[in-house]
Amino acid sequence: MNYNMIAYLLGNILHIEGILLSVPVVVAFYFREELSATSFIAAAVVCLVVGAVLQSREPEDKRIYGREGFIVAAASWIIMSVFGALPYYLTKSIPGFINCYFETVSGFTTTGATTLTEIEHLDNAILFWRCFTHWIGGMGILVFMLAIMPLSDDRTMHLMRAEAPGPLVSKLVPRVKSTAKILYIIYVVLTFLEIILLFAGGMPLFDSIIHGISTAGTGGFSNKNASIAAYNSRYFEYIITIFMLLFSVNFNLFYLMVMRDFKNVWRNEELRTFVFIVVTATLLITFNIYKYYPTLESAFRHAIFQVAAIMSTTGFVTANFDLWPEFSKTILFCLLFLGACGGSTAGGIKISRFIIMVKLVLREVRHIVHPRSVNLIKLDGFKIESEVTRSVASFIILYIFILLGSFILISLNGFDFATNMTAVTTCLSNVGPGLNMAGPTESLVFFSPFSKLLLCLVMLLGRLEIFPILMLFTPSIWKRGYM
Amino acid sequence: MNYNMIAYLLGNILHIEGILLSVPVVVAFYFREELSATSFIAAAVVCLVVGAVLQSREPEDKRIYGREGFIVAAASWIIMSVFGALPYYLTKSIPGFINCYFETVSGFTTTGATTLTEIEHLDNAILFWRCFTHWIGGMGILVFMLAIMPLSDDRTMHLMRAEAPGPLVSKLVPRVKSTAKILYIIYVVLTFLEIILLFAGGMPLFDSIIHGISTAGTGGFSNKNASIAAYNSRYFEYIITIFMLLFSVNFNLFYLMVMRDFKNVWRNEELRTFVFIVVTATLLITFNIYKYYPTLESAFRHAIFQVAAIMSTTGFVTANFDLWPEFSKTILFCLLFLGACGGSTAGGIKISRFIIMVKLVLREVRHIVHPRSVNLIKLDGFKIESEVTRSVASFIILYIFILLGSFILISLNGFDFATNMTAVTTCLSNVGPGLNMAGPTESLVFFSPFSKLLLCLVMLLGRLEIFPILMLFTPSIWKRGYM
Repeated sequence: MNYNMIAYLLGNILHIEGILLSVPVVVAFYFREELSATSFIAAAVVCLVVGAVLQSREPEDKRIYGREGFIVAAASWIIMSVFGALPYYLTKSIPGFINCYFETVSGFTTTGATTLTEIEHLDNAILFWRCFTHWIGGMGILVFMLAIMPLSDDRTMHLMRAEAPGPLVSKLVPRVKSTAKILYIIYVVLTFLEIILLFAGGMPLFDSIIHGISTAGTGGFSNKNASIAAYNSRYFEYIITIFMLLFSVNFNLFYLMVMRDFKNVWRNEELRTFVFIVVTATLLITFNIYKYYPTLESAFRHAIFQVAAIMSTTGFVTANFDLWPEFSKTILFCLLFLGACGGSTAGGIKISRFIIMVKLVLREVRHIVHPRSVNLIKLDGFKIESEVTRSVASFIILYIFILLGSFILISLNGFDFATNMTAVTTCLSNVGPGLNMAGPTESLVFFSPFSKLLLCLVMLLGRLEIFPILMLFTPSIWKRGYM
Repeated sequence: MNYNMIAYLLGNILHIEGILLSVPVVVAFYFREELSATSFIAAAVVCLVVGAVLQSREPEDKRIYGREGFIVAAASWIIMSVFGALPYYLTKSIPGFINCYFETVSGFTTTGATTLTEIEHLDNAILFWRCFTHWIGGMGILVFMLAIMPLSDDRTMHLMRAEAPGPLVSKLVPRVKSTAKILYIIYVVLTFLEIILLFAGGMPLFDSIIHGISTAGTGGFSNKNASIAAYNSRYFEYIITIFMLLFSVNFNLFYLMVMRDFKNVWRNEELRTFVFIVVTATLLITFNIYKYYPTLESAFRHAIFQVAAIMSTTGFVTANFDLWPEFSKTILFCLLFLGACGGSTAGGIKISRFIIMVKLVLREVRHIVHPRSVNLIKLDGFKIESEVTRSVASFIILYIFILLGSFILISLNGFDFATNMTAVTTCLSNVGPGLNMAGPTESLVFFSPFSKLLLCLVMLLGRLEIFPILMLFTPSIWKRGYM
């Protein structure tokens, strides 16, 4: 294990965070929020100093391997959240460091779960930082996916490769850099487009920025207690619905669209399945909640907004869906697991994995009916290697193990079944709201500190697709002299 | 598809059911229950007549293949439940045929979920039949497992082989018959032993028989409204706990014990894991519920009873665990999934599958750390073929799909999250009680007819380990001229 290089890279990341922490300083100056301004400056300085300490010795050997990449990824999200929590703590915006840490993890992992109920009295700089962590997290997950995925083959781009692809930085960096640049441009352009459309519709500029960056990261923090419901505006709701859906789509497809390769976009099974699920869930929920709303349009609007918010794992709210009939709530709960397309900023199991699992099961049934037939699993017309299938199956089994394990641990709070189950699921899938005490209008402040730290771990596991975080807990990886 | 042979075999099964239906006639005569006596005789006659009609043409070609074996298995459980429901319907013991059917499916699948709350006024013959269906179901599942599993290899005995092992009846029957005989002897001896021990402890003979056969099938029907709690006897509770645990163990191990091959018994990983989970869960729950009970012993007794009842998928009750703290309830919920050992009468996912999945996940993690290492999955020291791993993974993924799908459909009743989730899980794992409105002291009578039929399907899917029932819904299998 190349510890020097790991420290060096973490130092790099802290430098970047230091720079990012100075963005809210601008907001604080603009709104004349002195305490916030000094807090953000202090946090930025701490980041830069610690970063410099970590980089004090430049490593001789700069090679790192796949597993070290995983360790860096896991460690950097954990450490960034510690330093990112400083402004909340220094301004006393959130009581207690654990709550501050929870809010930051929730931000960077683009979850959007919170321990706050009343946020409108907070400094604008703080409100901005909450949503900015989403935007940073969304961008971070795009690099992360690029760095660990085989780039030559964009149909497996959305699949987490558990195998380390050999020397990482040296070989891949040039390629990562050019691809990352394209994805970042798409990310930034879409964010700007949403901000402009919201602003053009009459939303204050600051609010437009807040919701634009929050949507882009599929996070879900807002500057309003009532989230998007506060505006009571059809236009905003539809615009945000559209952008939540856009940020749920594999970014590679936007690239293909820019290249006018529409054939391959339409060929993408994940996209078609995503559209199919969104349409089906929206229709079922619209039909189910119709009688609670004055018009069919309003039922439809709330249904599609909530379906998009849950599937994109954003977690914005226009209606307290905890009051909807059980059928709609159950559909939303199942969508909590699913998430959206791989290669996007959304969390969850991902639709491509779901498709592969459905095909795995169908193959098993076909195999019983025709024992001697050879059945390949294909996605977008290409064969899926059995290694990938195995890796996807392991991922889903692990997902369920983590879910049930955390469900047991969180039940120590003594809250009810639905609260516990949905709190764990919503955090693992990086969505935000659940049901009952973890519902869309509630906060998670009542959970014990132990539970909050557990949920932080669960959010990180979900965001980094489990394996990198597991690596931190694998004893053999820390053995000295290990390569 | 050899339809003639399928009809012939189903006719055979109805003949057997006709004979089995005459057993409660003896009980009815003994207790002078006239209506019951005539109802059971009528039901038996109907079975024999329909059976004779199905067997009117002896098929020329008597060969059947794996997939036809699956169809026979699935069809026979469905049809047996239709005719087995007749006595409830004719005696008007249970209102409405759907409720009668539900009770019978719940009986034969050894689930023990019921739509009745008050049972003590029912005829003894009816009460006997309810529990006798458990015993028949338990015996049935032992043959079923024998018939579809590779017998040469007893370490994979507990794994459902999804592949059809070629011509089935012709090759396997002699071997099945001799092995089945041994397993039946063990089943019958253990049942008798329990009946004798209960009777010796002062339980009335009829009650001893009822609870003996109900435990053997890991069913859970009782002749008391309060289940085992009605006796308020430590002795009965411990005896039943021990037998629930015994019936959760792979029956092959009893055979090995009779052959004095203790080395291989101890080597059995599934058994050791089972013991470990029982001990851990019992200790955690004892500690958690301690303050609600007068003595440590009583907390321990209720804890181990409930752990054994859930894991063995029996579902007997000595305490309304729905009133226990959330932590204990959550542990019990997770055990609902798990079930006990393969090759027993218990339902659920089975511990062997769980072990294989844990090892699959660990291998995946090891594979990231040491990309070039070869990692085999072993059970009891033997290599598990990747085909088996794939089949187990498919099974668990299907289990979850069925669970979530049924969860959505059952939510149409409008009941709460915990009720819906636990009702579906408890039925799929063939346990019986769940939480809230599906709790240990409740009945499922409030569910809609659609939901009850759905739960019947779920119970059958769980009992036959999914694939045979799925075959019924696979269109290609019904194509004419299909081999």
